[in-house]
Amino acid sequence: MDASDRPVTVAIIGLGLIGGSLARALRRAGFAHRFIGYGHRLDSLVEGESLGVIDAYSLDLREAVAEADLVVLAAPTRVTEQLLPQVLAAPFRRPGPPPVITDVASVKGNLLRAARAAGAGQVPANVILGHPIAGSERSGVGASDPDLFTDHRVILTPVEGNDPAALELVRAMWRCTGAEIVEMGVQEHDEVLAATSHLPHMLAYALVDTLADAPRHRDIFRFAAGGFRDFSRIASSDPVMWRDIALANREAMLDAVDGFSEHLAALRRAIDAGEAADLEQIFARAKAVRDQFTADLEVRGADIRAATGAD
Amino acid sequence: MDASDRPVTVAIIGLGLIGGSLARALRRAGFAHRFIGYGHRLDSLVEGESLGVIDAYSLDLREAVAEADLVVLAAPTRVTEQLLPQVLAAPFRRPGPPPVITDVASVKGNLLRAARAAGAGQVPANVILGHPIAGSERSGVGASDPDLFTDHRVILTPVEGNDPAALELVRAMWRCTGAEIVEMGVQEHDEVLAATSHLPHMLAYALVDTLADAPRHRDIFRFAAGGFRDFSRIASSDPVMWRDIALANREAMLDAVDGFSEHLAALRRAIDAGEAADLEQIFARAKAVRDQFTADLEVRGADIRAATGAD
Repeated sequence: MDASDRPVTVAIIGLGLIGGSLARALRRAGFAHRFIGYGHRLDSLVEGESLGVIDAYSLDLREAVAEADLVVLAAPTRVTEQLLPQVLAAPFRRPGPPPVITDVASVKGNLLRAARAAGAGQVPANVILGHPIAGSERSGVGASDPDLFTDHRVILTPVEGNDPAALELVRAMWRCTGAEIVEMGVQEHDEVLAATSHLPHMLAYALVDTLADAPRHRDIFRFAAGGFRDFSRIASSDPVMWRDIALANREAMLDAVDGFSEHLAALRRAIDAGEAADLEQIFARAKAVRDQFTADLEVRGADIRAATGAD
Repeated sequence: MDASDRPVTVAIIGLGLIGGSLARALRRAGFAHRFIGYGHRLDSLVEGESLGVIDAYSLDLREAVAEADLVVLAAPTRVTEQLLPQVLAAPFRRPGPPPVITDVASVKGNLLRAARAAGAGQVPANVILGHPIAGSERSGVGASDPDLFTDHRVILTPVEGNDPAALELVRAMWRCTGAEIVEMGVQEHDEVLAATSHLPHMLAYALVDTLADAPRHRDIFRFAAGGFRDFSRIASSDPVMWRDIALANREAMLDAVDGFSEHLAALRRAIDAGEAADLEQIFARAKAVRDQFTADLEVRGADIRAATGAD
């Protein structure tokens, strides 16, 4: 690092929407001066270089990270899990401590386990896991946007044994993007995300799947109105990404699905028994909670705006 | 009716958003010249009269319908069920056949049963049930809009024994509003609406209820992002309206909830077993169906636009 304690070189491992947007935000803020891209698709890397998002690229992971002060894993969830030990094992070519390594994946528990395994039971001090709650329906480096994280939350999940300077560097990186930083435990992160993002996606997929199987399914889609449209929009998300999230956050998602199923079963019993007062109470309580959520959102302003696909 | 076979007087029973919007659309189209309002809230009736939505009103149902050529029940689902036999039993004061009676409620089976009971086992020939797939997040006659039904679908569910002239009058009424008329059976209507509208509302209520019960519920709402926001928006719908729909369409809704629960259980099993290929297949299939739905929507243009609360 240079005299100002800022990194000179940042390696973006996986040059898509998130990695490209982060690089552009960091370059604009002067956080670093050199950005190296790595990915398995040459056309994305060439596009990123021609757009000025990165200064150079490599199709060789070890080459891409060799001179980095900071490595950002910005690949899909399961790929990040595979790449993390490889980055930890890669030799680095410049003087000073090993690079700080962080990520942007939607699940943290699987990465913590991978980091711990790579560190022989101890999470390496330079690995700081993180998750920006931001995204877009568009994807790829061509859609990257230096304002993608502005006023959005980013969750960092530092663990005991993390190097305070490494954590401070990752915090400084996110501050440059205009994001609001929140810190919590890995398990808490995965439970909260299971409930607020992963479960709704599973419900949307299951709903569309149910309707597609229905005997009247042509009519059903013909007459589907606003409620269905909004509700099922997230079922258009990337199947591979959600397959990987479901596998990576398996336990928290099973708990979330089970909690939901119990509540749906209670609602079903009230409908079956014709319990008008119970039904009204369930609906009124949910409405009050949802209305409060909307009111809180308005106070928070744009914080959650446009947080979609990648959340 | 006058020489042109158009009704002179329309009674709007329940003067809210839907009834008010219908009256304004019909007046603008010259479909009728006199609109009488009925409701249990005097202030709504006074407001409707001062806005020119209705020409007169009564707090007495028999008085309101006595001179009507066409009676539109535009009250909530369960209230409509109670009012229908009263309208059928009300004396009418002008020459000619009894008034044509129609409605706008979200469930048709309960009204068919009520009509049949009032007709001693036979649905009265002048009762034509209908359901416009339109609504707004706003409510009340003050929010009424003569364009509310333009390019939206309205489902009519005529039955054997209906008077063809009565059916034609209801069709003519909806044509005046710019709506597209579709006809189907009562049971089909209730099944299709259970799947496309009632089930998503139940899932949204159950999701918000689940999250509100979670141990980390403050964090959960703090970090809820776009997916949750869109998914749960319909949980802000009117609890009394949805209580009544759940009770009125009980059987079709139980079937819809059961079908959904089976699909969610299959998804849960795939997550639990770590079946990557199955998960990807489920998600990809749902995405393909949802994307096709979106493409169809775009072809249909504004058809479903703004169809929200009252669908």
